[in-house]
Amino acid sequence: MWSSIALLNNNFKILWGDEMQQIKKIKTDDKKKFYNYLNLKLTGLICEEPDWLANLSNASALLWLLLEDINWAGFYLYKNDELILGPFQGKPACTHIEIGKGVCGAAANEIKTQVVKNVHDFPGHIPCDSDSKSEIVVPIVKDNKLMGVLDIDSPIIDRFNDEDAEYLQKFVNLLNKYVDWSKIS
Amino acid sequence: MWSSIALLNNNFKILWGDEMQQIKKIKTDDKKKFYNYLNLKLTGLICEEPDWLANLSNASALLWLLLEDINWAGFYLYKNDELILGPFQGKPACTHIEIGKGVCGAAANEIKTQVVKNVHDFPGHIPCDSDSKSEIVVPIVKDNKLMGVLDIDSPIIDRFNDEDAEYLQKFVNLLNKYVDWSKIS
Repeated sequence: MWSSIALLNNNFKILWGDEMQQIKKIKTDDKKKFYNYLNLKLTGLICEEPDWLANLSNASALLWLLLEDINWAGFYLYKNDELILGPFQGKPACTHIEIGKGVCGAAANEIKTQVVKNVHDFPGHIPCDSDSKSEIVVPIVKDNKLMGVLDIDSPIIDRFNDEDAEYLQKFVNLLNKYVDWSKIS
Repeated sequence: MWSSIALLNNNFKILWGDEMQQIKKIKTDDKKKFYNYLNLKLTGLICEEPDWLANLSNASALLWLLLEDINWAGFYLYKNDELILGPFQGKPACTHIEIGKGVCGAAANEIKTQVVKNVHDFPGHIPCDSDSKSEIVVPIVKDNKLMGVLDIDSPIIDRFNDEDAEYLQKFVNLLNKYVDWSKIS
């Protein structure tokens, strides 16, 4: 009996490893198709996982793995009336952002997705990485409360458009469905 | 007065951005020299930052940026008698690891750094990513309590040795000095 349980556990782990490895980059210029795939994989990663940090860490890893032409993807979380760095992929980043400052601060302040063609033209831009040229920031709001922002940078000017904003909003909606923001500390 | 404060704040932010950008990859075969640089940069990143999550997120970003020939770097945190995925860089990863299972579980169970030449030879290895060939896991212990593990994977067999273990222990010691593990949730 013990060995069959061990075998089941082992099989589960192998299947789980397969699940990870089934997430492959896809080549397509069709943003709808791309983001449907991305959001399907996000659901698979987080829908049965209760740990908020594991979910945000895997969510940023998924963005990093699948999105082309980006150099930073991750989260700033709303704590103590400011945005503080959360899980991300990319180079080390600024840790505190005042509400209203830079692109992330604007998204948090206005509760409105920011699609910025060239960050160097954005008033008050916080230059964490000079390679970053364009940026999209989606505020994360649950039950009318700001939880943080999803922030993605690109080394290419004009990388993001309203279609990215639309589908990344769905990505954030999935996070809101499965991430227990109340546990954040 | 207001404008001079704003100017100071703005300068601070620019300097902070510069600090990020001053972290460059260095080419050296001298592990002592390399890790002294890595640990110096870690100190600069986290010594004045009180937020545990910002620090662990930036710490894994720093490892990812500087270490050659790795395909995963980050943390599993000890919560509810198991290891749960924390901040990392690399592909999406397994979220729960039982104490004693796989390389991470062994490090946590034995409170002993594991240097594994070929993970496929390691009993009970959890295959999150088939590209991973060798691995080093350093347990994080503060005040005689397990806080989690630092986990780094490589796609190359025999990537890590006792010298890596020695200097990554210093990396973990710096985390212990500056990270407030009591805030983890």
